[in-house]
Amino acid sequence: MKNIQELQMMVEAEICAQHKAVEPHELYEPMWYALSNGGKRLRPVFMLMGCQLFSDDLKPALLPAVGIEMFHNFTLLHDDIMDKASMRRNLPTVHVKWDVNRAILSGDALAINANIYIARCDKSILPEVLDVFNTTALQVCEGQQYDLNFETLPDVSEEEYLNMIRLKTAVLIAGSLQIGSIIGGAESRWSSGIYELGCLIGMAFQLQDDYLDTFGNPVTFGKSIGGDILANKKTYLLIRARELANQEQLKILKKYFGIETFDPAEKIDRVKKVFIDLGVDKEIMDKVHDYSNKALAILDKLPVPTERKQELAKFTRNLMDRIR
Amino acid sequence: MKNIQELQMMVEAEICAQHKAVEPHELYEPMWYALSNGGKRLRPVFMLMGCQLFSDDLKPALLPAVGIEMFHNFTLLHDDIMDKASMRRNLPTVHVKWDVNRAILSGDALAINANIYIARCDKSILPEVLDVFNTTALQVCEGQQYDLNFETLPDVSEEEYLNMIRLKTAVLIAGSLQIGSIIGGAESRWSSGIYELGCLIGMAFQLQDDYLDTFGNPVTFGKSIGGDILANKKTYLLIRARELANQEQLKILKKYFGIETFDPAEKIDRVKKVFIDLGVDKEIMDKVHDYSNKALAILDKLPVPTERKQELAKFTRNLMDRIR
Repeated sequence: MKNIQELQMMVEAEICAQHKAVEPHELYEPMWYALSNGGKRLRPVFMLMGCQLFSDDLKPALLPAVGIEMFHNFTLLHDDIMDKASMRRNLPTVHVKWDVNRAILSGDALAINANIYIARCDKSILPEVLDVFNTTALQVCEGQQYDLNFETLPDVSEEEYLNMIRLKTAVLIAGSLQIGSIIGGAESRWSSGIYELGCLIGMAFQLQDDYLDTFGNPVTFGKSIGGDILANKKTYLLIRARELANQEQLKILKKYFGIETFDPAEKIDRVKKVFIDLGVDKEIMDKVHDYSNKALAILDKLPVPTERKQELAKFTRNLMDRIR
Repeated sequence: MKNIQELQMMVEAEICAQHKAVEPHELYEPMWYALSNGGKRLRPVFMLMGCQLFSDDLKPALLPAVGIEMFHNFTLLHDDIMDKASMRRNLPTVHVKWDVNRAILSGDALAINANIYIARCDKSILPEVLDVFNTTALQVCEGQQYDLNFETLPDVSEEEYLNMIRLKTAVLIAGSLQIGSIIGGAESRWSSGIYELGCLIGMAFQLQDDYLDTFGNPVTFGKSIGGDILANKKTYLLIRARELANQEQLKILKKYFGIETFDPAEKIDRVKKVFIDLGVDKEIMDKVHDYSNKALAILDKLPVPTERKQELAKFTRNLMDRIR
């Protein structure tokens, strides 16, 4: 069995091996710039973990795993234009380093390449693999649209928020795990359970990310703390805080999330205090635990040898540990 | 056998039948706005004509035909952003009617839907169909990149231009015809011939479009005449004119394609005169004839009953007639 670090290295090596200089370089250079910029390789690792649940041979999942990372990077390229994000993983985003046109078109090329790589699986499972992939891909677009809608909506409910992160983040992790399991030879009756498992882990993962963005350790989190607050993002923390706040707390939230500008440190500090006073930090932790425990329960019931589930279980438990 | 008008109506009806109101409407409304805006439906019609070469049953090609039209519209949505085009088929473009973000994201949703619809063919031919589609799709992106490159290049050669329109326009027509023929049951040994046939027709079609943009009849062309000249587009006409021009003619071209602005009618008039004096209008007609005749020769050799080839032959001959 391979652990997550080993799987990450396999993905990294394969992405590197696929990198060839092709013309027009104006199209492919930004594509490989984005793809080569590291990251956790979470989706391809989930695809390999899905395969590993059922098979020792991970090689058939390797090119589709590169494909799912290409798809993820396609969404990042286009999302960064829409969100006007200037940096990603400590490097300028594609539309800043080159321009918006290059980011649109090399994003499109990434999406098409994603299809090419995903399709490089055994012909007998191709229809099933594509069905999962295409459905998931469309949901990711829907999630991004809801996220864009939230920017201008005065109020977003907890339910709407959870549905948005399910579409934008969780389903792609679920789809990756499921495609990996199909490649590994899973019987189709486990299919929906595996998808559900991936979805629960994806929800826990995104909510943990929301938590860490505000309450994480700046050294281990990798991004600067408080980014969501400064960007006025309607995260789970803010949505719940608004629902629970008394008049005075609501006044503070309205002030700091209004049109006025504030000293960043002051804004983060005051908002964080409201979050803590209202206990929404604890509430989001509970949510992460809920989703993670449900995932572990499904994993437990999956009729494969325990050692095959080990890395998935470790990843899921780690989601809970990191926020304690 | 169905004629082109009947095939267009089949496509139109199927696009209409697929239109459902789905949430988030912010994503799907621009997608259907673009898709419903008519046009010649050239690519799906070519897919149906490819199917009709080998089969009376066009139904299995209908959903993939909608898929290829979705792909084409995806490229239009994103190209219109890159080209800053404000109108398409007498309606405001998506990024003008809504905004750039909506055009990027609903374009992405169109591309993913294209994959979903293309994949709705018999499982036994899915790998072959996807191989043609994905290869073609990537080439279309490459063609668009070369086209963008040309805007800032001081000189573009005839060869570079022909390669660009092959990638940007011809291969998708070729791919459509080939996928249709696969669905219709063509033996794989005819595959490359059918692709070549589509490619030649695609080249003739694009060069005819270049010709008509400058020399067409404003009543029948549908777009206003001289658009390419006013947009300083490096078309076949301008590229060849620059190569053939004497000092004086070169001075005129440099003047009218420089940074100065001119009265549109004057610019079109003067440039057109240089084109005619140099005979590049005749030269481009010859090119259209060359490509069309080569296409007809391949079609002639294709071992299917003559009546099955009739509409393709008519379309190709029409390309030559319209420019006489």
